[in-house]
Amino acid sequence: MPREATTDSRQEILRTAARLFQQQGYDGTSMNDVAAALRLSKGGLYHHFQSKDEILFNLMSHAMDITEERVIGPAKQIPDPEERLRVVIRRHIAVVLSERDREITVMLHENHPLSPALRRKINGRKKDYIHFLENLIGEVQRARGSQASVTPRAAAFALLGMINWIYQWYRPDGTLHEEDIAQQYTEIFFQGALA
Amino acid sequence: MPREATTDSRQEILRTAARLFQQQGYDGTSMNDVAAALRLSKGGLYHHFQSKDEILFNLMSHAMDITEERVIGPAKQIPDPEERLRVVIRRHIAVVLSERDREITVMLHENHPLSPALRRKINGRKKDYIHFLENLIGEVQRARGSQASVTPRAAAFALLGMINWIYQWYRPDGTLHEEDIAQQYTEIFFQGALA
Repeated sequence: MPREATTDSRQEILRTAARLFQQQGYDGTSMNDVAAALRLSKGGLYHHFQSKDEILFNLMSHAMDITEERVIGPAKQIPDPEERLRVVIRRHIAVVLSERDREITVMLHENHPLSPALRRKINGRKKDYIHFLENLIGEVQRARGSQASVTPRAAAFALLGMINWIYQWYRPDGTLHEEDIAQQYTEIFFQGALA
Repeated sequence: MPREATTDSRQEILRTAARLFQQQGYDGTSMNDVAAALRLSKGGLYHHFQSKDEILFNLMSHAMDITEERVIGPAKQIPDPEERLRVVIRRHIAVVLSERDREITVMLHENHPLSPALRRKINGRKKDYIHFLENLIGEVQRARGSQASVTPRAAAFALLGMINWIYQWYRPDGTLHEEDIAQQYTEIFFQGALA
């Protein structure tokens, strides 16, 4: 199965590169460092990715793929808008806390230099997610006859901020665990923006 | 007034360095780049800062000074806890949106390599702010006889996330302006975590 083998090694390269970028900075990591950490020849690495820019773009794309597969896709299966939003909140928090994917997904939010064309592609996908959330929040507000004067747009940014900020403070050995965060953030958001 | 002159040029160095770090990355910026952008000799720059690490630490310290001077200090003058929290929210949002300080304050949240000792100092100041918020939120919950099951700690992280995430999406020419954000975020937070 040569196809699958290729996919696997691309993902392994991305995962290793993400770890190096976190540890020593994007600019402080060379293509040679990535190849060495994978015990790949430089040619072996260049077979998959032509440049560090291409690795960074693919990392960010992969982070958006993860969001689509684990948050948006499953949520779209749920007919009731309120339940759909609860699932989005719980699943987005799970993605942020996923030990395996953390180094990849955190890359989405760091200020790394990507060429303008590639930056536009990533930003387009981020905007699609914001619009999905905004529409869903509006739908839930209408379904609940919400009295909140909060606009779906401001609410979507507030929710994304609450969740994506978890990268900054979460420690696996801390007192707030995934289930606590999901429950309390859902309460804050539902009471605050949808009541 | 030689003292003031020194302070001014240190701040000018920090501001210029922050801009370069944003534009070309921390690792992609050399001490030479900083000196050149300021039309300083390398000796002139090293008179103020011995290393890029020292600049980064002082940038982050300066960002915390800004938070203390413009958010915590004025809030502490206000006896009523609810009003104090409203002022914290409004003033913290103003710091995030301050065009003049944005490049400095955003540095607090990026994953740049700081030596462990300096990192601990900055993290200590960040933790002090979180504890200040946490205590204030607890005080407001008690004063209002809040029925929320949200803990002050989770609420503090949620609030910091909402506000600090504004760096990621705010555009001065966008539809959400400072006053809208302050009003809507205050509503979400007060209804969601303190009602």
